[in-house]
Amino acid sequence: MTDWRTLAAPALRAERERLQARYDAFCARGLKLDMTRGKPSPEQLRLSLPMLEHAERHYTSPSGIDCRNYGGLEGLPEARRLFGEYLGAPAEQVIVGGASSLAMMYDVCVRAVLFGAPGGPGPWGRRECKFICPSPGYDRHFAICKQLGIGMIPVAMRDDGPDMEAVERLVATDPTIVGMWCVPKFSNPTGAVYSDEVVGRLAAMPTAAEDFRIFWDNSYAVHAFQGEPAPLRNLLTACAEAGHPDRALMFASTAKITFAGAGVAAMAASPANTAWNLRHMGFQTIGPDKLNQLRHVLFLRDMPTILALMREHARILAPKFAAVQRMLGAELGGKGIATWTNPQGGYFVSLDTMEGCAAEVIRRAAQAGVCLTPAGSTFPYKRDPRDTNIRIAPSFPSLEDIEAAMELLAICVQLVSIDHLLAQ
Amino acid sequence: MTDWRTLAAPALRAERERLQARYDAFCARGLKLDMTRGKPSPEQLRLSLPMLEHAERHYTSPSGIDCRNYGGLEGLPEARRLFGEYLGAPAEQVIVGGASSLAMMYDVCVRAVLFGAPGGPGPWGRRECKFICPSPGYDRHFAICKQLGIGMIPVAMRDDGPDMEAVERLVATDPTIVGMWCVPKFSNPTGAVYSDEVVGRLAAMPTAAEDFRIFWDNSYAVHAFQGEPAPLRNLLTACAEAGHPDRALMFASTAKITFAGAGVAAMAASPANTAWNLRHMGFQTIGPDKLNQLRHVLFLRDMPTILALMREHARILAPKFAAVQRMLGAELGGKGIATWTNPQGGYFVSLDTMEGCAAEVIRRAAQAGVCLTPAGSTFPYKRDPRDTNIRIAPSFPSLEDIEAAMELLAICVQLVSIDHLLAQ
Repeated sequence: MTDWRTLAAPALRAERERLQARYDAFCARGLKLDMTRGKPSPEQLRLSLPMLEHAERHYTSPSGIDCRNYGGLEGLPEARRLFGEYLGAPAEQVIVGGASSLAMMYDVCVRAVLFGAPGGPGPWGRRECKFICPSPGYDRHFAICKQLGIGMIPVAMRDDGPDMEAVERLVATDPTIVGMWCVPKFSNPTGAVYSDEVVGRLAAMPTAAEDFRIFWDNSYAVHAFQGEPAPLRNLLTACAEAGHPDRALMFASTAKITFAGAGVAAMAASPANTAWNLRHMGFQTIGPDKLNQLRHVLFLRDMPTILALMREHARILAPKFAAVQRMLGAELGGKGIATWTNPQGGYFVSLDTMEGCAAEVIRRAAQAGVCLTPAGSTFPYKRDPRDTNIRIAPSFPSLEDIEAAMELLAICVQLVSIDHLLAQ
Repeated sequence: MTDWRTLAAPALRAERERLQARYDAFCARGLKLDMTRGKPSPEQLRLSLPMLEHAERHYTSPSGIDCRNYGGLEGLPEARRLFGEYLGAPAEQVIVGGASSLAMMYDVCVRAVLFGAPGGPGPWGRRECKFICPSPGYDRHFAICKQLGIGMIPVAMRDDGPDMEAVERLVATDPTIVGMWCVPKFSNPTGAVYSDEVVGRLAAMPTAAEDFRIFWDNSYAVHAFQGEPAPLRNLLTACAEAGHPDRALMFASTAKITFAGAGVAAMAASPANTAWNLRHMGFQTIGPDKLNQLRHVLFLRDMPTILALMREHARILAPKFAAVQRMLGAELGGKGIATWTNPQGGYFVSLDTMEGCAAEVIRRAAQAGVCLTPAGSTFPYKRDPRDTNIRIAPSFPSLEDIEAAMELLAICVQLVSIDHLLAQ
């Protein structure tokens, strides 16, 4: 395959004509595909329907708690034990909540903004505060910062996690940097898995802020496409060993294990952080929905059972992600106009166009009926400085729809690239 | 019956001896009763078990929404319609959330503290702010204010709602008064129902604060012991008619209709308040647990179905509240040492001792094995200025236990009253 950047203008124009015809044909098909979010497909949701069978007969937990009634701010003991196993933390350091881990993260941020985090000099809302934001990253994390008035400093994402030299340099000297967002395994959107070395450096690095916190959003801890999920070093343990026990706040949920909208979220942290969260949560609520926690405990049981369920998810997801690779490779491979990740798990593929092309690609795809995550979304302030990143979310559509959408996306990338090259 | 305040010391001492013997006998019984909170009993929770039968078969809402997946920040359309009917508001002005209406109220307060309420001059957290707190009232409301740094101004509760002359005078002149807590029907703890006149005055009164909000916690809207629930004027409509559409924030939940810990909470408000809440909620979460909302919609269906279920609750609760009245009347009636309310619904009875006696009564009851809501809890800052109020929560214990607990409580009231009279 020829690198298009070496092609002469007439050859590019000839390619452009062929591509435009294919694009017009797509427009005529009247596609209407939504690939904006990482939603599980109905086939995946079906896997957990047996969980609801427990509902009618079981409302008392194995330890004898009536899950229909009030109480248990910290979550059902059996759920704390299960999520402790899942997150790698003692049950006493686990809080099991409602359906949304995003809400848990938001609420923890709000607590720090209003009341200050343990060990810190006071509320984040009363001083200048910033977060390190490995980018491309998860748009909803960045939105929380924007909403709460927390500044954002983008740091490049690499194949093994964020650019640690940049991270270490920033946090060492700037006391206004109080936090950092991480999706450490099958990262959103690149699919990167943080290496043991990166986790170790995150745990050990000196920070100017006394109340520096890593928001460890381990959404895809067991979401591998093949075999056992990639290993990930335990941040909570690493931080404790490095003498920074309160640095790690680890989150997880079953949104992509059982039901996206009706799962269970959990968080693991140091004893001090756990006590601090519970103290403030006691003003907000009497307790979480323990019936849903009980359903999850009875259905998910233990790590082997969870991993078996995840293999069923993988059987559905892997072919979809393979189709993305196949279509992008066939259309864009070797042309020097785009690169993309090939994640081994998670919910996203990250595609990078030539500089200055991503927004226009997304615009043209939308015109032909395929909605992608809006341009810039994977960067703080929705500003992709080089305008290159496109997030692909292939979990929800059918295989056939994914193939159509990827063909169209690749056509758009090529069209915009040619326009870009011709304009140079 | 003789008014004890007219008895001579020897007669009081003779009474005291008899009462002490009964108290000692209670201590010897080794009772262990918790009457601190308004929890439904297992018999009540059993009434809603059929709701869980729907779980396995139904996950698609009548309008075709897959309740297992993400989305629907504002709640399931069918749930918004049902709670609209319940709260007396158009479905578009209703937000249906998770299990906890307390969390909804807390989160609305946090939004106002951080971002300011529509129509106001900015965040409540950036200026002095206070709430009117009809007292005795609900301790968890007051705790939210304390936690968020909102000052509290107690105002007396009467049989038909708060002392409106005091309320009107305060809000008219003090621009730092931005809110007010109300449990308008079968109030916690007195059981009072706000009269139409009180609701009208709350809606119409001029307030110095432009962003004054009434937090209308209608937890017991259909929780009558006999017949139809007492009528309550619709605050949202009244406020709109009085030209203050954004003043009312109405809350409800099924905590005491279906399951205390696994119900559904909802809020109704003006279009401006609803849009404001949804805009901020969009940063906190992707959406509520729609499966639980669907279960509720399929089980509760409509107002006649809800009212029929509440009659079943009443059949269980009414005898317990009757026992409280019977025991208090038999032991304390006519002695001039205590008064108590006789609510027609809700979850509490409010008992007032002679001044300076409540804390000591609660202490002695606890010593004999009956835990009551801690002294002062029903007042802002946990300070009952006259030390008279005791909240009785008879919903959870068995009839037999309630009779024992009330007999003990009455003995303690008499003992402490005699000590008080003898010391004068």
